Amino acid sequence: MKIAQIAPLAESVPPLLYGGTERIVSYLTEELVRQGHDVTLFASGDSRTSAELVPITEKALRLNPRVVDPIPYHMMLLEEVRRRADEFDALHFHIDLLHHPMTQDFAGRTITTLHGRLDLPDLPPFYRTFADNSLVSISDHQRLPMPPVNWAGTVYHGLPAGLLSPRFQVEDGYLAFLGRISPEKRPDRAIRIAARSGMPLRIAAKVDAVDRAYWESDIAPLIEQYPNVRFIGEINEAQKADFLGRASALLFPIDWPEPFGLVMIEAMACATPTIAFRCGSVPEVIDHGVSGFIVESEDEAVAAVADLPKLDRAIVRAAFDARFTAERMAADYVALYHDLPGARTDAARLRRERGEGAGLQVVA
Amino acid sequence: MKIAQIAPLAESVPPLLYGGTERIVSYLTEELVRQGHDVTLFASGDSRTSAELVPITEKALRLNPRVVDPIPYHMMLLEEVRRRADEFDALHFHIDLLHHPMTQDFAGRTITTLHGRLDLPDLPPFYRTFADNSLVSISDHQRLPMPPVNWAGTVYHGLPAGLLSPRFQVEDGYLAFLGRISPEKRPDRAIRIAARSGMPLRIAAKVDAVDRAYWESDIAPLIEQYPNVRFIGEINEAQKADFLGRASALLFPIDWPEPFGLVMIEAMACATPTIAFRCGSVPEVIDHGVSGFIVESEDEAVAAVADLPKLDRAIVRAAFDARFTAERMAADYVALYHDLPGARTDAARLRRERGEGAGLQVVA
Repeated sequence: MKIAQIAPLAESVPPLLYGGTERIVSYLTEELVRQGHDVTLFASGDSRTSAELVPITEKALRLNPRVVDPIPYHMMLLEEVRRRADEFDALHFHIDLLHHPMTQDFAGRTITTLHGRLDLPDLPPFYRTFADNSLVSISDHQRLPMPPVNWAGTVYHGLPAGLLSPRFQVEDGYLAFLGRISPEKRPDRAIRIAARSGMPLRIAAKVDAVDRAYWESDIAPLIEQYPNVRFIGEINEAQKADFLGRASALLFPIDWPEPFGLVMIEAMACATPTIAFRCGSVPEVIDHGVSGFIVESEDEAVAAVADLPKLDRAIVRAAFDARFTAERMAADYVALYHDLPGARTDAARLRRERGEGAGLQVVA
Repeated sequence: MKIAQIAPLAESVPPLLYGGTERIVSYLTEELVRQGHDVTLFASGDSRTSAELVPITEKALRLNPRVVDPIPYHMMLLEEVRRRADEFDALHFHIDLLHHPMTQDFAGRTITTLHGRLDLPDLPPFYRTFADNSLVSISDHQRLPMPPVNWAGTVYHGLPAGLLSPRFQVEDGYLAFLGRISPEKRPDRAIRIAARSGMPLRIAAKVDAVDRAYWESDIAPLIEQYPNVRFIGEINEAQKADFLGRASALLFPIDWPEPFGLVMIEAMACATPTIAFRCGSVPEVIDHGVSGFIVESEDEAVAAVADLPKLDRAIVRAAFDARFTAERMAADYVALYHDLPGARTDAARLRRERGEGAGLQVVA
């Protein structure tokens, strides 16, 4: 198929640092190319891809100090897509809201993955207006706050199978916490669970400006208090395999409606189980007793740490291979592209490109 | 003509309190209706108009505490416009950026008034992308930072002739400052000019949260220092005629590229001259020595205060009647609508509505 991938411009595809959406767009794009599709990626000009890149801006917006307002650049993105829309059998948007009025003329070939949380008061009236447009959720739970819309499907995120190598034997294991220091990620729970379990805890996390007060008042003092807790700051993609792979388990003690939770499948790829609180997507991602444990209290989490030896790390990785590779994600999306109401087949597009009308085909 | 006016949703049309853009959209809409045009106003549901109102939201976004993100509502606005776009001979947008990709299919009947300052780094690449779309500036000076675009014209704002009554005799006059307390409006200059002139100064202004520190450190102490200065806080539309009309002059000592400066023509309507610093639109709005004085320093401003008796307030009002009524503004816009490359005449639209093709007309 001839497929357009339309990425946000905040980060490059893939992102240099954080940027979950841009990372997934990259994995999906590269895998679609690998599977033989003709893919065009609309993204910031510092993106790196084996697809055709349509560069909208020189660099990712978040890295450009001269950028005040991201909206004008996303309008330029839309205009580039509009000019070329007729070329594509399917157009896949990852920018949430901004394209819906413009894509109505080719909505039958358009699909939108919603990458964020949807429990915001401004969204129901918006999605009621665009109720016919094909949407993809990244977990079933993510859909709960939404009005009736046209869900094309849920497609769980996936990672390239070779991105993170599994480590089946772990010596001197520790509990790992990876993400942002923020109240909804509950690093305080992670610290208490580790303390009560008598296990070391390593926290690899960034502290955003908005979370600085929470860090100083709640988390930094707690880390001081427990000698078994080590804060190692931000880590990059290359350091993840080691950080997650050498851990006995990932702690994911969240307290918010997580739409997907990429770090759980990153751990899974490393063969590391996750102990996660039952919130948002968690029960859809973790198979309880297989790839980790789903808990509902700190007591249950402490008991789960004691039960970790019952899990087989090879089976954790097998769960990843079965459900969370980029190959599976791309295949899911291609199936959805084919099911779009206005999807064009390669043959139909080739006929159009040769200037042969559909009517002629009926006669032939 | 059948005309669509598309307003921002931040405030109602007209706004309850502040909202320069929504106020102008209201004056224009009501005057177009008065001149016999068929006008449809796309705006928040609490707007009041004699045109057909297409209500997008129940209330203005800024008055609704549940609104976090204004973007989804503006996308809903665009979708309503798109669904009905074919009805209109001309579509007039007042929302700056968001509509450009969507309106490309009917760009020949679309015109956009730019209501804000344009010296922002994100705008040149945007407007280069949409260089063919018809734009209207609200002063010639406003265009300076822009790349080459398709300027349809400059249309100065206008007020209904009866909105503010002129007052030709003023006793115990004072100098007036009306607006926001912010560094670019330079209330400090106004205070010093009044002090040096030995004239009372009345400041009617709001203090936004963002300007609170400036108010407390710079302006409040200065007001304390001078007994001839009175701060009277915010005033509403009804109080303006009195506040401006009883003044000997409006001080407009700005220090930024003002795109238009509505308060200058409000004063003019009250027959009150303006002493303004040469910035932005000022030389286009004020006729030096006729409707006020244009100055370049505080010394010149103090001299101008002494020269106020040389100005005839009846001639100040005559300058308003000649150049800044809503009637003149609407006539200017109608001329631009007719000149749009894709403008439809009433006759052409009626033929379309009757289902008569253009081809038939050629034969007839």
